[in-house]
Amino acid sequence: MTKKKDELFMRQCIKLAKKGFTSPNPMVGAVIVKNGAVIAEGYHKQAGKPHAEIEALRKAGKKAEGATMYVNLEPCCHFGKTPPCTKAIIKAGIKEVAAATKDPNPLVAGNGLRELNKAGIKTRHGILKKEAQPLNEAFIHYMTKKTPYVTLKMATTLDGKTATSTGESKWITGEKSRRNVHEMRARNDAIIVGVNTILKDNPTLTTHKISKKDPLKAILDSHLRTPPTAKILKEGKTIIFTTPQHNPNKRIHLESKGAKIIVTNAKNGRTNIKDAVKTLGKLGITSILIEGGSEVAADALKEKVVHKVVFYVAPKIIGGRRSKPAVGGEGVASLSKAYRIREFSAEPCGEDIILSGYVQVG
Amino acid sequence: MTKKKDELFMRQCIKLAKKGFTSPNPMVGAVIVKNGAVIAEGYHKQAGKPHAEIEALRKAGKKAEGATMYVNLEPCCHFGKTPPCTKAIIKAGIKEVAAATKDPNPLVAGNGLRELNKAGIKTRHGILKKEAQPLNEAFIHYMTKKTPYVTLKMATTLDGKTATSTGESKWITGEKSRRNVHEMRARNDAIIVGVNTILKDNPTLTTHKISKKDPLKAILDSHLRTPPTAKILKEGKTIIFTTPQHNPNKRIHLESKGAKIIVTNAKNGRTNIKDAVKTLGKLGITSILIEGGSEVAADALKEKVVHKVVFYVAPKIIGGRRSKPAVGGEGVASLSKAYRIREFSAEPCGEDIILSGYVQVG
Repeated sequence: MTKKKDELFMRQCIKLAKKGFTSPNPMVGAVIVKNGAVIAEGYHKQAGKPHAEIEALRKAGKKAEGATMYVNLEPCCHFGKTPPCTKAIIKAGIKEVAAATKDPNPLVAGNGLRELNKAGIKTRHGILKKEAQPLNEAFIHYMTKKTPYVTLKMATTLDGKTATSTGESKWITGEKSRRNVHEMRARNDAIIVGVNTILKDNPTLTTHKISKKDPLKAILDSHLRTPPTAKILKEGKTIIFTTPQHNPNKRIHLESKGAKIIVTNAKNGRTNIKDAVKTLGKLGITSILIEGGSEVAADALKEKVVHKVVFYVAPKIIGGRRSKPAVGGEGVASLSKAYRIREFSAEPCGEDIILSGYVQVG
Repeated sequence: MTKKKDELFMRQCIKLAKKGFTSPNPMVGAVIVKNGAVIAEGYHKQAGKPHAEIEALRKAGKKAEGATMYVNLEPCCHFGKTPPCTKAIIKAGIKEVAAATKDPNPLVAGNGLRELNKAGIKTRHGILKKEAQPLNEAFIHYMTKKTPYVTLKMATTLDGKTATSTGESKWITGEKSRRNVHEMRARNDAIIVGVNTILKDNPTLTTHKISKKDPLKAILDSHLRTPPTAKILKEGKTIIFTTPQHNPNKRIHLESKGAKIIVTNAKNGRTNIKDAVKTLGKLGITSILIEGGSEVAADALKEKVVHKVVFYVAPKIIGGRRSKPAVGGEGVASLSKAYRIREFSAEPCGEDIILSGYVQVG
């Protein structure tokens, strides 16, 4: 197969993978190619559902014999919620497996390809590795570091504001961006917001039915000001992180509405976001989306819990010394201390532009 | 000539045009094509220097006979600082002229092409019109509206800040962006800054030798706080716009340093930016670059003098409720009153990203 054809089929795998909402599992797409043409494809739809390889093999049926399988992540060789894909690939008579990246899961990590090899299947990896990796950056991070992968999302105007001086923030960005955010929610295991967002916007923080699984919702709420009538408590699971300063009566009331209350050590009177992230990690949360609040955003950056930033920038200017900035707090005192963003890139999203990148460590 | 070839040659014209610093003249490039190949090219380097067409014809010499000329702007047919291009094109025996746009100058406005036509030369226009127009948007604006074309330029962090809470702003953006700004200066007839920029940064506001011609520098300075020792007064022409509240002694001192003082009506105690722009227009200034401060930016937007915004966004986050926002002032009270940006687009510039667009009128 030529390099060009290799990349064509792998690009198709990546495209398929993106259709799934698989957290905490990786996003995977697979295509089966025979005589230079795709004969079957599949993708992993949701954790617990069949893996991409199995979907594709099922569609190919007997035609899979002698064919090449493209897949953006090394096939698994361990029993998880579903049996190992390697066994099915071998059984189907696949001749060659071409992967984009190895599986960082220590239970796989090259063992999948090795097992296929031993069974006489030709294996390759590294095709479109750079394009495939961002797809599963949260999964890769969790598998290798065992802590949640945290994305900070903001919706701002061109001049970096998230609300007017009177507090109006609905809607800064356009419809496509908002739909995009619902997809981001669906791809994360948990969402963190500050209590001010609850008090001001009273959001549901659901994926708006984009995915069957809504993420866990977490509120940072030092004094338990979340109203027991808040919409966020009506659907799905909600954890409220608070401080020892909270009012025990409010706790009882919120718990009666189904919220789980976790007390963190206060930091300058505020809920400790680092503690909250760590606790969520221990609860099996692999990926977190922080939906600011300028003060929550400031805390998250200061406590170095953020791995990736995604700013939806609207084609609007609000201005104003007193309107809400994207990131509040004290701010860094000198430019040399600014949080630096690696791989800074721009992408249109309807009328808006998404600016994103990775927070530089150290 | 096929459409593809047409566009190829016109793209070359646009590329050549961009090499010139021609304000208040338009940016023009020309290529002469014979038997499907470029035999000569030229561009307008600077006002007063030969037009692109003449440059190209001179290089082609006798070979121009029977050739096609591509040019991004209709050739002129009037005597300005140089004789009309149409005469030279006819004399050289050019067979066909293909233009991107007509010249909006009422002295030309189709007459150039008509004159060529009458002399038996085939003419066409509209090739890559959309790509060619932004090149001369300031020129087109001034020719049709007779007022300066105003661009607001800001350098901000991803979170919309222009300085830390301690006032540090050097340098937010990277080297390539700063070079890019020098080019913007060279393409504009005048630069406007607020006196705070002078007091804080003491800039020279030159093009750093990118162009032979430095733009006129204008300072908005309600109380004449500009120090007579300011670097800006050492080179080129500087106008200081002030209010009736200024100190007459300071005026005498600044005038002795070569500054021209113009008194505007105060608006909320501030220099009236609308008056300043109008006055510059009457002085023959066709294009203006406003280089922040956040209060000048706010005034400029509020007074509706801005046509285009260009934000250089650095891959950094500063945060802070008290750090300097890109646009200050009171800000708009409601989102429905936000300044809207048309044709919002992103472009990488070294490590930074340029977000730009046009301020929606009405």
